[in-house]
Amino acid sequence: MGILDQTIVLLQQHRLDELRALLSELHPADLAEVLQELEEEDRTAVVQLLAGPTAAEAISELELEEQVDLVTALPPEQAKVILDEMSADDAADLFAELDPEQAGALLGLMAKEEATDVRELLGFREDSAGGIMTTEFVAIQAHRTAAEAIEQLRREAPSAETAYYVYVVDARERLVGVLSLRELIVAPPDAEVRSIMRTNPVSVHVGDDQEEVARIVQKYNLLAVPVVDDQEILRGIVTVDDVIDVLEEEATEDIYRAGAVSEAEQEIDLEGAIWPSIRARLPWLLGLLCLSLLSGKVIEAFTPLMDRVHALAIFITTMAGGAGNAATQALTVMVRGLATGEVERGQLVRVVWREARIGLVIGLLCGLVLGVAATIWNGSPWIGLIVGLSITINLMLAKAAGSLVPVIVQRIGLDPAVASGPFIATITDTTSMLVYFSIAALVLRAVL
Amino acid sequence: MGILDQTIVLLQQHRLDELRALLSELHPADLAEVLQELEEEDRTAVVQLLAGPTAAEAISELELEEQVDLVTALPPEQAKVILDEMSADDAADLFAELDPEQAGALLGLMAKEEATDVRELLGFREDSAGGIMTTEFVAIQAHRTAAEAIEQLRREAPSAETAYYVYVVDARERLVGVLSLRELIVAPPDAEVRSIMRTNPVSVHVGDDQEEVARIVQKYNLLAVPVVDDQEILRGIVTVDDVIDVLEEEATEDIYRAGAVSEAEQEIDLEGAIWPSIRARLPWLLGLLCLSLLSGKVIEAFTPLMDRVHALAIFITTMAGGAGNAATQALTVMVRGLATGEVERGQLVRVVWREARIGLVIGLLCGLVLGVAATIWNGSPWIGLIVGLSITINLMLAKAAGSLVPVIVQRIGLDPAVASGPFIATITDTTSMLVYFSIAALVLRAVL
Repeated sequence: MGILDQTIVLLQQHRLDELRALLSELHPADLAEVLQELEEEDRTAVVQLLAGPTAAEAISELELEEQVDLVTALPPEQAKVILDEMSADDAADLFAELDPEQAGALLGLMAKEEATDVRELLGFREDSAGGIMTTEFVAIQAHRTAAEAIEQLRREAPSAETAYYVYVVDARERLVGVLSLRELIVAPPDAEVRSIMRTNPVSVHVGDDQEEVARIVQKYNLLAVPVVDDQEILRGIVTVDDVIDVLEEEATEDIYRAGAVSEAEQEIDLEGAIWPSIRARLPWLLGLLCLSLLSGKVIEAFTPLMDRVHALAIFITTMAGGAGNAATQALTVMVRGLATGEVERGQLVRVVWREARIGLVIGLLCGLVLGVAATIWNGSPWIGLIVGLSITINLMLAKAAGSLVPVIVQRIGLDPAVASGPFIATITDTTSMLVYFSIAALVLRAVL
Repeated sequence: MGILDQTIVLLQQHRLDELRALLSELHPADLAEVLQELEEEDRTAVVQLLAGPTAAEAISELELEEQVDLVTALPPEQAKVILDEMSADDAADLFAELDPEQAGALLGLMAKEEATDVRELLGFREDSAGGIMTTEFVAIQAHRTAAEAIEQLRREAPSAETAYYVYVVDARERLVGVLSLRELIVAPPDAEVRSIMRTNPVSVHVGDDQEEVARIVQKYNLLAVPVVDDQEILRGIVTVDDVIDVLEEEATEDIYRAGAVSEAEQEIDLEGAIWPSIRARLPWLLGLLCLSLLSGKVIEAFTPLMDRVHALAIFITTMAGGAGNAATQALTVMVRGLATGEVERGQLVRVVWREARIGLVIGLLCGLVLGVAATIWNGSPWIGLIVGLSITINLMLAKAAGSLVPVIVQRIGLDPAVASGPFIATITDTTSMLVYFSIAALVLRAVL
């Protein structure tokens, strides 16, 4: 019997001491999984039973919405215990979701120091360094010794993730250096911190975007990065576990955007109400549908031609689809390259030119295959020529456009991941019809 | 003048001592950026100048191809210094790219212990826990004291990323517990390790997939996870900085697959030769083009109908494009949900049913708008009715198919991220034409 089933049985039979014994052994991440699966009432009962550090950590792993439901369902004195035990950054995320009245009441209950930390963090933008940092860090003055630093660490006994660097500050709390716990241990006990610390530590500003913070932690292989304000005063640290969540969030965002799903959908419960998803997707779909009417305009202009040669209509979806797919490939590589920094500013022209050549080669090969297929299908080499030639030109244009559009979108200050898709769909639909029917008109004029 | 320009100037003027002074101050990650931008010859010169730990770490940040070029260009004695200083997992990645003869020669040069570690790591699959783990870790017997453990840490002075946990093993080197460096410091110096360690530590198996390893590190907020073999013997650790790279790699893979780009393209230099990219993309494009001929078959069947009502051709791209986009949205959410584990096995039916309802509502709204637009454009309410009704049905079907296909693909044992795209494109192209022209035939038969 799994932990979840055992929990449900013990709850039903009111064997609460056994339940407490069972669950208090769990890692917070595993406890979070159990909580996730329980009905709301049972979940509240379990948290009441366990109120303490493990429960607080488990709760901060839940979806924010679930956290809010849970904390507001608890009796005030237990909500206080949980909120005091939560790390300040997780508590701040939760408070940001509460209505102001509730938030005020709960902040009033909390221990003064924790409440102050949360209030401070609530002042920062959610997706900035200030919004994801924690205020739990170990700072020491530069004139202290290694032994004193270790002693301070012992005394403050911070949580595991935040104890691996000791930050060195001057008399005005400005960041001047950093020491890893390992360096502290290896150093002679009476060495002054200033003589063993690394100066010019990598740091970020409270206002920096969370993605930038993540890239810096990734680049320098850090376990945590210090966050400073305009006066260089140390305000908090961002730990690597939060950085992982940021990178995953940003990756999901990029994947969603590439699929023409608004990033808002990321926050949506995939089993919940349908309206939030509709709001997130409808604008994209409707916009793309309306833009596609442009290509309808092109088709309309060539109706007389199709009237004479019926076979032309057959390849409309192949033309539009092929150009769309070819452009999406180039677009995907370019947008991801810009996001991860693999494609840098100075190389843009080279990359676009490379895509155009790729498009020409792929276009020639696909044009050859499809041209032969169309000839066989219709029994007319002229239709084959039209299809083959159109595919060649369309794929080359699509590749060039697919790599060029994200660059242009970025230049005019928009996010390439968001805005490139709709542009590209409209461009490939319309130009592919234009190219196809123009070539058809030219070839057929020569032949008929 | 930036560091890169200074480097180039100093190299040209052969002011090598100044250059050494300039570059030896840099963080390895920043040195890597300088190396990346230099011409091959200059790069080799700089590495020869700096050969040591920082250079070794910087080199392991370069693309594997560049690493190979660099190491094989160096005089053997300097290649040896670099390889000995590289962490074993990075060195193993490099050796995996060398041809066997070169690899043998270089391994022969290396210090014996380092060479043994590299040989061991080369035996594991590249994307398994064994393939990404490092063999640098601190292990201690359970009967030692906290003070002895700290002393051992001092003596072995491992690199910063690998020193934050001390792993506890029994007499047969089997993993029995773990201690964080913080716990070690907080503990009384004469406490036995076995009495203060955490038992049942989270661990992974050498054969586990790297994505699974990354998910575990992420779930438990670890800085490193121990890797054991079939006998539970501790073989290495995977550190969080490598986990970040794995997560990024997997995200790029998913993004590429969603864009119908083969994951092979991930390894391709975006400024390099075009043939690798062509090989990575051509099969998808050509396959999708050929499959799209199916929808051409449907159009062909309805040519007589289009002949009578020319306006029908105008909306072909709108129908196919709209259905494709709607399906892609549902597909994106489902594939990402399956990849991150947000959508679990038990919930599949609920999620698909939810998508169908979303599709119905979005379809009705889009159908209304496009139906009115078509009516105005063509001056015929019947065309409007056909377009509106077709869009409604197509979007609903597309949403349901978009969420169902990844599930079916996963059930038959394929990766939903890879195989869903082509299926969905073919399905939406073909069914959208079928629905559109069938409705047109029905409506027009009633009217004409």
